Amino acid sequence: MSDHAVPSPTDTDAALLSEARALDAADPLHAHLDAFLEAPGVQAYLDGNSLGRPLAVVPERLAAFVREDWGTRLIRSWDEQWMDLPERLGDRIAEVTLGAAPGQTIVADSTSVLLYKLIRAGAAAAGAPAGPDGARTEIVIEEGNFPTDRFIAAGVAAELGMDLVWVQPDPVRGVTVDDLVPVLSARTALVVLSHVDYRSGALADMAAITAQVHDAGALVLWDLCHSAGSVPMQLDAWGADLAVGCTYKYLNGGPGSPAFAYVRRDLQAQIRQPIQGWWSAADIFAMGPRYAPTPGIRQLLSGTPPVTSMLAMQAMLDLIAEAGMAAVRAKSVSLTDFAVRAADEVLAPLGVRLLSPRDSALRGGHITIGHPEFQAVTQRLWGEGVIPDFRFPDGIRLGLSPLSTSHEETLRGVVAVRDALALGGR
Amino acid sequence: MSDHAVPSPTDTDAALLSEARALDAADPLHAHLDAFLEAPGVQAYLDGNSLGRPLAVVPERLAAFVREDWGTRLIRSWDEQWMDLPERLGDRIAEVTLGAAPGQTIVADSTSVLLYKLIRAGAAAAGAPAGPDGARTEIVIEEGNFPTDRFIAAGVAAELGMDLVWVQPDPVRGVTVDDLVPVLSARTALVVLSHVDYRSGALADMAAITAQVHDAGALVLWDLCHSAGSVPMQLDAWGADLAVGCTYKYLNGGPGSPAFAYVRRDLQAQIRQPIQGWWSAADIFAMGPRYAPTPGIRQLLSGTPPVTSMLAMQAMLDLIAEAGMAAVRAKSVSLTDFAVRAADEVLAPLGVRLLSPRDSALRGGHITIGHPEFQAVTQRLWGEGVIPDFRFPDGIRLGLSPLSTSHEETLRGVVAVRDALALGGR
Repeated sequence: MSDHAVPSPTDTDAALLSEARALDAADPLHAHLDAFLEAPGVQAYLDGNSLGRPLAVVPERLAAFVREDWGTRLIRSWDEQWMDLPERLGDRIAEVTLGAAPGQTIVADSTSVLLYKLIRAGAAAAGAPAGPDGARTEIVIEEGNFPTDRFIAAGVAAELGMDLVWVQPDPVRGVTVDDLVPVLSARTALVVLSHVDYRSGALADMAAITAQVHDAGALVLWDLCHSAGSVPMQLDAWGADLAVGCTYKYLNGGPGSPAFAYVRRDLQAQIRQPIQGWWSAADIFAMGPRYAPTPGIRQLLSGTPPVTSMLAMQAMLDLIAEAGMAAVRAKSVSLTDFAVRAADEVLAPLGVRLLSPRDSALRGGHITIGHPEFQAVTQRLWGEGVIPDFRFPDGIRLGLSPLSTSHEETLRGVVAVRDALALGGR
Repeated sequence: MSDHAVPSPTDTDAALLSEARALDAADPLHAHLDAFLEAPGVQAYLDGNSLGRPLAVVPERLAAFVREDWGTRLIRSWDEQWMDLPERLGDRIAEVTLGAAPGQTIVADSTSVLLYKLIRAGAAAAGAPAGPDGARTEIVIEEGNFPTDRFIAAGVAAELGMDLVWVQPDPVRGVTVDDLVPVLSARTALVVLSHVDYRSGALADMAAITAQVHDAGALVLWDLCHSAGSVPMQLDAWGADLAVGCTYKYLNGGPGSPAFAYVRRDLQAQIRQPIQGWWSAADIFAMGPRYAPTPGIRQLLSGTPPVTSMLAMQAMLDLIAEAGMAAVRAKSVSLTDFAVRAADEVLAPLGVRLLSPRDSALRGGHITIGHPEFQAVTQRLWGEGVIPDFRFPDGIRLGLSPLSTSHEETLRGVVAVRDALALGGR
């Protein structure tokens, strides 16, 4: 009868529900929940960091785009508005979320393709591929970094005859300056790190680590997939060299919307990306015999920009701008703090572990909790309209997109995990 | 008074108009024109080979996708329908337009990025980069090929330490077996050619040229951008090795919709593409320490597939399937034949030259005409809702997308060119 050791769900639930409702009532961004499309049958959407929800205006905006910009203006829209959309949208992302001046950010391709371009370009610019002794021949990457970052860095290292060097931070605390001390050296060309860890949610100190990498004479590439639109940044002030980020998470661009890349202005003349398609050429319509890259951030383009996939995020950027990143972050902290408290009270007694930092200053917009039964639990929850994310081998990730998630919704999710665990265990 | 040498516009116009109307009345695909969205103010859209028109169902399909698949099913749609969309849509393109069996075609990225992947992979598979004497170290490309093909081939050749060798065909007739004789050798690794030339519309003999390249022991990559959805193909029967094509032209996928790639089944185990992102991994969600590519065509993926940009083309593929590629080609030939006759009668007297093959068997779905004033003429026409494409330095390209263009519309375009030229010359 060890079940009796578990606190009574009803009392705990009621107290947490009161707390959630009080937090929602005091939330200055609560009204923004109405900006998102309703999702019939969804009790709790806790995966906004895998796929952000569409804003309510998006269906008609896409339809109007097809009728007017594409269907009526037709090819003329390239001249009228699409040609510079990759830069305009990049500048908008930079202004609203990155703390970066114009002319350094561009929207294109996927995160993986942009990582390839910038890891290649950055490693080649900073290092001397297959060079003599003393050359910078190492790409440093965290062993817990997102797979595509690691896979692509490994591929580039092999291509350029460079070595991959692994950083091994604490998986919950995430990468720190101390972790980099043993690996940085005069051989380091490029360091590839995530601003927010995709599993633990650990938030790296971008300013301190960037300064440390620069002291070693190397460049750093930041993966912003799990921070863009959730954690305020000052890329320019912090001296970031290169960055790549995702627009379908906290920027709500829709499934497979293109990625963005940032290259610090004074590095732009030193890099050369490998996929030299016509959109990166100095004169795109000259169609001359030889390739010459255009100067500036536009050199990162390759093929025709994916216009249709660049539309939905624009409404979200407007909403974030209206709220302000400081307020977005404050709500994000409130949501994850509350999720940690609720998990402590409701889930810890069932053996669920917190796999994220307890200190909100060390955390991004999601938390991860662990239990051996979470794969089966996630499957059951999805069928019931409670939608967290499962991360192999035993993690449930609660991605609490600040503008589209309430405290009460967060609690519904945590309670549903408890109920599913209880069912699963018997 | 040399103007009097020009045939009276009125009589010629009237005769051609009768002919156009008779051809439209006899056109078995004429009713399909109604499947496309109306474009208010557009008199003649003659640029379907730069950006195909949206089908009338597309605005609501995109809106419903946002409301339901994205907005309500949310992240669950990846499991339910999006995960294998790149292959399913690739197979559909293969079945409807390419004459290729399933499992060899995938939708991803842009044409430029897929060209990079396949030129890299094909050159490396066929050649021996920077190898000893006797190795295959040459990439052969046509000097008039589309810029992105040439630029990317040049970049890959430099990366791999290979040489770029130029084919120099007649610019109107396009590349033939005879043109390749002097350049193919035991040093040839990969040949990169367009099926339909982006300027002249010249149609290459894919079967004969592929056999010739194979006789030389090399591989061939076909750029299908200007033929997919317009010219019937039998990629499997013709023995094509690699191919890349565009979906925003005759497949009406919308601005910047992703490209497709074809890799012959028995080559798939021999190639390795360079951008080894997580979507190309053997087990995408294992997120293990080391990269291992998945077998089959899915190895060409890198990042998250651009789902939103993959929707519009599906309606067009259904329409092409309903019409059948043979009927689409028959109408395409009728349209370009009529455009050539109209240009001969209406424009040749003003000094306009035909820059495309006269024999329809040697031509794809567009023709190009030349005159020194065409840049200014195009600008004027666009303002009037007559929309051809200008190609530097003096070409107007008439892209006659078979399912969305009528003979009468084609004639309106040709007559408008004449009228604009007449105005411009005075």
